[in-house]
Parts: sequence; C-alpha cells; structure tokens
Amino acid sequence: MNVFPQRCVTSIRVRYAETDAMAVAHHASYLPWFEVGRTDLIREMGYPYKEMENDGVLLPVIEVQANYVRSVRYDDVLELHSFPLEQTGSRLKIGYEMYRDKILVAKGHTIHAFTDKQGKPIRPPKKFLEKLYRLKK
Amino acid sequence: MNVFPQRCVTSIRVRYAETDAMAVAHHASYLPWFEVGRTDLIREMGYPYKEMENDGVLLPVIEVQANYVRSVRYDDVLELHSFPLEQTGSRLKIGYEMYRDKILVAKGHTIHAFTDKQGKPIRPPKKFLEKLYRLKK
Amino acid sequence: MNVFPQRCVTSIRVRYAETDAMAVAHHASYLPWFEVGRTDLIREMGYPYKEMENDGVLLPVIEVQANYVRSVRYDDVLELHSFPLEQTGSRLKIGYEMYRDKILVAKGHTIHAFTDKQGKPIRPPKKFLEKLYRLKK
Amino acid sequence: MNVFPQRCVTSIRVRYAETDAMAVAHHASYLPWFEVGRTDLIREMGYPYKEMENDGVLLPVIEVQANYVRSVRYDDVLELHSFPLEQTGSRLKIGYEMYRDKILVAKGHTIHAFTDKQGKPIRPPKKFLEKLYRLKK
Repeated sequence: MNVFPQRCVTSIRVRYAETDAMAVAHHASYLPWFEVGRTDLIREMGYPYKEMENDGVLLPVIEVQANYVRSVRYDDVLELHSFPLEQTGSRLKIGYEMYRDKILVAKGHTIHAFTDKQGKPIRPPKKFLEKLYRLKK
Repeated sequence: MNVFPQRCVTSIRVRYAETDAMAVAHHASYLPWFEVGRTDLIREMGYPYKEMENDGVLLPVIEVQANYVRSVRYDDVLELHSFPLEQTGSRLKIGYEMYRDKILVAKGHTIHAFTDKQGKPIRPPKKFLEKLYRLKK
Repeated sequence: MNVFPQRCVTSIRVRYAETDAMAVAHHASYLPWFEVGRTDLIREMGYPYKEMENDGVLLPVIEVQANYVRSVRYDDVLELHSFPLEQTGSRLKIGYEMYRDKILVAKGHTIHAFTDKQGKPIRPPKKFLEKLYRLKK
Repeated sequence: MNVFPQRCVTSIRVRYAETDAMAVAHHASYLPWFEVGRTDLIREMGYPYKEMENDGVLLPVIEVQANYVRSVRYDDVLELHSFPLEQTGSRLKIGYEMYRDKILVAKGHTIHAFTDKQGKPIRPPKKFLEKLYRLKK
C-alpha cells in the first residue's frame, strides 16, 4: 500500500433533509458527504472529476464501507477528511474520517474502478496518476 | 382544459430514510413519490417512460407544487392517485392526491415539457397523445 | 403583503448524488437546497431554527412550489437567495431564487406553519417576529 | 456464528430520483433499499420495527458495507434478499443480496446496536430474540 500525502478537509453542515425520525443524520446521508469530500480531494489534486468525465473517464463506486461512531444532528458542522489509500491497476481506494469538535464521529472508505463511458475498466489516466504520485517523486 | 379519464393508483410505504427529525416524512420525499406515481400512470397508459426515453423523448419537470395536509410517518401505507390534468403544445400537467385510510394527506401537481435529448421543446409523440386521448374518442 | 428587507445568499455546489439520469440535478434536490437557504436566512436573522426547535417551536412546510427555468449540472456553483415574503397569523411564506453566473435557473416558495411539538398551530414566537420586523421599525 | 433460517424477499423498482448522471442508480440509493428489506424482514419475523420503536427500542446502524457488482438502471425491478447473519450481545448483523433476473447485482451487510431512546446499548428485547431463534428450537 502506498501512503499518499494528500488529505483534503471539507466542511459539511448537516441538512434537515438528511436527518431521520431518530433525530440524527440518517446513515445513508454520509455517502453523499463522502462524495463531496472525494470531489474536493480530486479537485485539489488538480484534476477535477467533472473534467475527468469530460475526458471520457468515470470512477464508479464498487465498494463502500462506513462506520458510525457517534450520532450527528441537524445543523452540526462536521470536518470531513478525505485521502487516497491505495491505487492498484484500475482500482482506487479512498478513505474518509469525519470529526465534530475534533472528535471522530464516522469513518469509512470507497473503492472505485476507472472505467470508460461503457463501463469497461481502463488504466487510470496518466494525468491522474501524476497528480496522485506527484509528491512522492 | 381536458378532463382525462385515466387515474392510476400506486401504493407507497414510507421508508425510514424518508423521515426527518420531526419524526414525519420530509416534505422533499413526496416528489420522488409523485414521480413513482407518474411512472406508473404512464406505464398503465401504455407508453412507459423508459421506452419514451429510448425513443429520444424526455419529460423534465418545469414546475412542481405540493400541499401537505397531514403528516405521514414511517411505515405508513399511502394510496397515491396520479392523473393527467392538461396537455397544451409541448406542456403536460399531472395531478396527484395522497390518501391514508381514505383521508387526504397531500396533493400537488407537476408540469412537464416534452423535449429532445438536447433539452429543446418538441411536440408530444403521436403515440403518447393517442394513449392520452384514447378514451375520449 | 409586507416587504421585508432581509435577503440571505447561500452558495450551493451541486453534488453528484443530486443529479439524475438526465445528467442534470433532479427536481427534488432543490427542496433541500431551499431548506439550506431558509436555515441560513433564519440564522442570519438571529434566531437559528435549531434554537427555535429547542424552544418547542416547529416550522413544518405546508406548501412548496418550484419553477425550474434552466437545468443545472454536477459541480455547478449556484447562488441561492432566500427572503421572507409574508407573515400572517401562524403562517410564514419564504421565497427563493437560484442563480448561476447571475442568470436565474430556478425560483420558488415555501409556506410554513408555526406549530408546537404536537403539531398544533401557534402564534409565531415574539422573538421571531421582532427579528422579522426589526428593520421596519 | 448462528445460521438463521429467515430470508425475506422484497421487490424494488428503481426510481428516477435514485439514478445519477452516469444513468445508473446512485450508490447511496442502495442503503434505503437495504433498509426497506430489513423492515420487511423484521415485520415478517413478527416484531415490526415500528412496534419495537414504540416499545422504546431502537436499532441504529453502526456499520454498513455494500459491494456493487453490476449497474442497475431506472425502472429495473430488483429482487432484494435480507437475512440475519449474527447476533451477539447488543449487536445484530444483517446481510443483503440484490438480484436482477437471477443475476447478483449487489450485496452488503449492516451492523446494528440495540439501544434505548437515549442511545444507550441494551440487551435485545426477549420478544425479538424469540422471533430470531424460533425456528432453531
């Protein structure tokens, strides 16, 4: 496993629509948050996902895991950390940690496949790999 | 305004993910329900929306209105009625009523434009109009 | 109708999860955005909704209307304006306008009822009315 | 690990609101589907979750994992299998498999904690355990 230096911090404020009848954020709401963090991470790395899609490269999610450590509530402001964990072949693994007042409330990961528009696995774009490994050279 | 004979009834069970911290269904949850009802209505009319999209015709929403009369809760079973209200040029208006135990809990409408894949307004497909007006001939 | 001076501007970036198979933001996604704008508006007015709920006052939505003028896409940055439109008895009407690059992409309104925790309509809290009418004195 | 005999089958039709700009169901949409399957499973076992909540027992999700094997699209009809995997102390693990035309499209699990209304872990209700272990006696 490579240890990548990138770590992107995104601020997320819990929306009312993201809560459920337990008066806490519904567990499915965290996946769009992870996605927001991932979007920010890739933008910061210098190859925005929107641009990647325009270049014909998709990054569908093939696995997600989330661990819910503490409940979060409407209007809570969370600090989401997103960071690359591993890249092998056409696979990319990204990790996430969420904090409220410096206390971990959730963590997780997603695994993605680089594919073309038809869903066929492809090698990651050279431009993406350069951004990913840039600080390791 | 034409009065169309079609009326489609769909059963909706409220999902936990659709509730919010007030312990009732969140007001945004009703729009996907209306969409489910609309999908059922158009399928029953004999020209499924999926087929319409394959034929290059889209029906984006250009207006939505919803009135929330009574709260609904997790696991409630609702009866959704969907029915055409009006068709003029490239516009289609559909109405909705939701009932729980025969009591109205919400109502609303959506207005749609028939467009091509580029979003340009087009005449409704002849096949759709035949289905819409079939019982009036 | 009173004309209130408050107008709150919120920046919204379209999430991937908020898009649909037409490759634009799904029409239901706008309602949580309006809610984010409303939350910001009420916070700016000086009586955050979270605090209001803690005081036993709820503001459920009893009507929503949205008009979709232009499609918006993943990663678009939108400027959402939220502003009070009318207050009569236990009712509050709030308006919304969304812009992308200064061009209107959507507008709408919500109507709310002030209620207690049991859902019974109540007079708006004096503290809220003071904030609402403060600049008119 | 106990092997439980229960297996609940739920039919899920993909909603348009559940798709994303890749024209497939968004990965976060599967979590509410798992939840629908879980609700059906627990209802079939004879102790509906709504009733459990009324009895003061909650089952928040503390871990979720999902593996996306094949894309699913708008209006696809999926067969969701939900089944208990393990119960130890206050923990309950439930598994899920989704099929389209008998072909696996996704699988996953959730882990839950039995808690009281204040979020404190508690022993599973005797009534629930009787239902869970009933066919093993």
